[in-house]
Amino acid sequence: MRNVPVFKGHIVDLIARRIVGGEIIVENGRIASIVECEVEKSAPYFMPGFIDSHVHIESSMMTPVEFARIALRHGTIGAVCDPHEIANVMGTEGIELMLDLAKLADFRFAFGMPSCVPSCNKNIETSGFVLGASEVEKFMKRDDIYFLAEMMNFPGVLGGDPEVMAKIASAKAAGKPIDGHAPGLVGEDRKKYAGAGITTDHECNSMETGRAAVESGMFVLIREGSAAKDYAALAPLIAEAPGKVMFCTDDCHPNDFVRGHIDRIVRRAIADGYDVMDILTAACLTPVKHYGIPAGLLQKGDPADFIVVTDLTENFRVIKSYINGEKVFSSKGQFTASLMLERSVQIQKNLVQHMINNFNAKPICEADIARTPDLEENVIVASDGSLFTLNEKCQVTPDVQKLVVLDRYSDNAIPKVAYIKGFGISKGAVAQSIAHDCHNIVAVGSDDKEIVKVINRVIEMKGGIAVTDGTMMEDLPLPIGGLISPLCGHELAFRCELLDEVIKRAGCKFHSPFITLAFMCLPVIPQLKLTDKGLFDSVKFQFLDTCKLS
Amino acid sequence: MRNVPVFKGHIVDLIARRIVGGEIIVENGRIASIVECEVEKSAPYFMPGFIDSHVHIESSMMTPVEFARIALRHGTIGAVCDPHEIANVMGTEGIELMLDLAKLADFRFAFGMPSCVPSCNKNIETSGFVLGASEVEKFMKRDDIYFLAEMMNFPGVLGGDPEVMAKIASAKAAGKPIDGHAPGLVGEDRKKYAGAGITTDHECNSMETGRAAVESGMFVLIREGSAAKDYAALAPLIAEAPGKVMFCTDDCHPNDFVRGHIDRIVRRAIADGYDVMDILTAACLTPVKHYGIPAGLLQKGDPADFIVVTDLTENFRVIKSYINGEKVFSSKGQFTASLMLERSVQIQKNLVQHMINNFNAKPICEADIARTPDLEENVIVASDGSLFTLNEKCQVTPDVQKLVVLDRYSDNAIPKVAYIKGFGISKGAVAQSIAHDCHNIVAVGSDDKEIVKVINRVIEMKGGIAVTDGTMMEDLPLPIGGLISPLCGHELAFRCELLDEVIKRAGCKFHSPFITLAFMCLPVIPQLKLTDKGLFDSVKFQFLDTCKLS
Repeated sequence: MRNVPVFKGHIVDLIARRIVGGEIIVENGRIASIVECEVEKSAPYFMPGFIDSHVHIESSMMTPVEFARIALRHGTIGAVCDPHEIANVMGTEGIELMLDLAKLADFRFAFGMPSCVPSCNKNIETSGFVLGASEVEKFMKRDDIYFLAEMMNFPGVLGGDPEVMAKIASAKAAGKPIDGHAPGLVGEDRKKYAGAGITTDHECNSMETGRAAVESGMFVLIREGSAAKDYAALAPLIAEAPGKVMFCTDDCHPNDFVRGHIDRIVRRAIADGYDVMDILTAACLTPVKHYGIPAGLLQKGDPADFIVVTDLTENFRVIKSYINGEKVFSSKGQFTASLMLERSVQIQKNLVQHMINNFNAKPICEADIARTPDLEENVIVASDGSLFTLNEKCQVTPDVQKLVVLDRYSDNAIPKVAYIKGFGISKGAVAQSIAHDCHNIVAVGSDDKEIVKVINRVIEMKGGIAVTDGTMMEDLPLPIGGLISPLCGHELAFRCELLDEVIKRAGCKFHSPFITLAFMCLPVIPQLKLTDKGLFDSVKFQFLDTCKLS
Repeated sequence: MRNVPVFKGHIVDLIARRIVGGEIIVENGRIASIVECEVEKSAPYFMPGFIDSHVHIESSMMTPVEFARIALRHGTIGAVCDPHEIANVMGTEGIELMLDLAKLADFRFAFGMPSCVPSCNKNIETSGFVLGASEVEKFMKRDDIYFLAEMMNFPGVLGGDPEVMAKIASAKAAGKPIDGHAPGLVGEDRKKYAGAGITTDHECNSMETGRAAVESGMFVLIREGSAAKDYAALAPLIAEAPGKVMFCTDDCHPNDFVRGHIDRIVRRAIADGYDVMDILTAACLTPVKHYGIPAGLLQKGDPADFIVVTDLTENFRVIKSYINGEKVFSSKGQFTASLMLERSVQIQKNLVQHMINNFNAKPICEADIARTPDLEENVIVASDGSLFTLNEKCQVTPDVQKLVVLDRYSDNAIPKVAYIKGFGISKGAVAQSIAHDCHNIVAVGSDDKEIVKVINRVIEMKGGIAVTDGTMMEDLPLPIGGLISPLCGHELAFRCELLDEVIKRAGCKFHSPFITLAFMCLPVIPQLKLTDKGLFDSVKFQFLDTCKLS
């Protein structure tokens, strides 16, 4: 006699596009057979798990094991990951770390090789590492690298830049997909970009760009993350181009992530009346097929990867998640995922002893950022929820504050100082080592004393976030590359909420001030940004010489 | 050669009532010596840790290890605990469980033996266990029982009830303190109550009762918890009766506890201008002396238990906590407490396999709670933030809802139904197995269907909280006695926030609806309550016969 797990309920077959009553028999972690039978109307639904088709785990600030543990509670059983942030800071060592930690999770990770490290020219900002075509080629051959990650340098693709073309060639040689990143690209340029072999885009944010991408043969990754939210603009593609869309978050911040993931997008699409098979094809099937993710799809012989949901209405809840037939999440017990929690804690312990980082900045003093403003200054105008800024030539009035960027990689860098409007911090300051894409230290505050305090706290922690309202300081150490915390997901989410509370008390009214701040250094997004090398006009693509210290 | 840890800073000596610059030398987990020396003004402060002088760990919904782990982040190194809730549910087995789990934590726990299980008569409500004088006597002799816990039956003390007097006698025989609980008691009664050997009271909520307690020789435990907040009323006692006051939380709920503990009371008292030595005497010294807690007090030879704070202003922050010279919390690393986190996870795993509970209720159906209201009913009027209710004879108008209580201990109990005003749930329902003190199932909701759904979810989980807004249900399983979750503290706090969000969407405007609901069954607090045996007039101390089902 032997016992074999049998699961009974409505079974969602995305290949045959139908839902049948039946029993799933699991043997040795695989689907042994599926036998149709009558089931009660109220029986649960068994379906392939959700896949996040494009995400930077680093934005969750969690280790891959914790990322997986939280994702599984939302029915996400796999993710297509670009370790771009940690690669900018720690190069291939950072990528290896992510790959190693990911292997400890019961989760279907598909990692790509970052294609654009750094995003820009070394003369424009200081990154930790530069990954050239030879590193890319080496990694593209590895079995645990599934694709070439977002090719942001689309002018390079269109212009046939040799380094860029070599990276693309190595992906093709390895027979692996190439991810795109082409905001606003339409017409002939879009076709040329797609013609280079690039097959996805997660930067479409209008039906015009979305349709242009689909027409040129690309998959559109509908993004609904913590910062960018494109679902509303792109949802009609679910019906127009079924099989050519997937869902992704790109960036998913801790206090957002613990509340929901791809399941949220699916619920919304069901509420909007899209065909449930089209929706689940985008959420579960298409990414598995496109990226070759080794996730089961509830077919005979597949690994027994699936999720159990209450129903398929707009209010469905994820009850359980399975990987290789093992229950890795249960909403009832809540405790079956404790194996992964144990691993997470183990990682926490180990990482304390072997913290990997690239952080050399030394404490600064107020004189380092002292500056007498000119009668008129080029002021960066930040606005809530936008990565774009304006360049305004104006006086430094009380609503204008200092923005400081300090190269974290060298121990004798001079902070760069500019002026910024919008953050509205009336008393206090914030500094962080999350600053796309080079992740130098960026800070903004009401006065030099507070700015220096938070910058020095970040330096003391060798990376993290520090914020003060002038009386109390809250901080969050991010000892892994200045980007990631070894803490458990919910504690991390809680700490992020505390940071939010302090910055609100400091007077900032932005919804996600830390995310907005993280983009104030990124020179590839217009109009005016401050890098560790100076104030940069992202429209003319050149430095302004106003970044002098008095 | 050998290395010995030396700590340098301002050292707070609460015995000598002075603060000196100096170095603390720790050897073998003890204070080897303290050497005075000059220190910088900005140096941190070393001081004995805070003690919560009266708390029911069960209200945090955490295991003792998690309770300790969260408390240490706030500088609390010990707690005087009454396992009263779990004792009502699981008797001495519950007390043993708490003692066993507490031993896994690096923390100074002092447990007492509950004196009043159940709080009331067995004919008034059904509890899991009754602890008589013989069980109390047995436990009072144990080394790990520090005191007899809150003697709520003050009429019994004043009237010389033999069972009550026997419990008191066994505490005296063991030479251990007896805790009081005497709301509103003044004059001769207070003196008689104190004269019986009862030495503390945490129920004073006015200067009149506080002074009466002090004058009769008792210690006043100033309570500032999640539900009851007495600091504002009692703070002057810090100056009037230094050495006769302590601080406590009594009940500290998860999402509140992760944000602060005794440190919050201390900050507030400093802000209010009380003498810092008087404040710290109440927060750290008096409970250690009164209860004989084996916590170090920063004296030569003491266990090296201490905390490190930034300063002693109203904005101080806890930087580190030490027990036996071991760092058990560090705000910088955050990760040194991972040993306890590991134990917590281990407990999670073990408890999944050996869940201890006392829960036999079987699912109910709508017919079980159907009832046609009389033209006039005795309606319980609940109000925000109050454990007291009013008894209003009125019609069942739309703002009046059904309140249901079901004995959780038997498998064939009939739910009791009454009417309640105040919760304002317009669509949805809430049920929970936290209902003082017997912890039967209590539920309130907009209609029978929703009420049955949440009650049956609680029954399915064998204890916990379930809430629905009519479309989605959130739940929190509490598999340890229907009171405690093995989850980590921050995850638990997060889940409590989700529950809060759903009940708010359901229309409830109370600040802490789950706490208020938990007191709707407690017959010892006026005026009208519903127990599993019927509608109870807590003023006349008798049942009303209106609790019939149609």
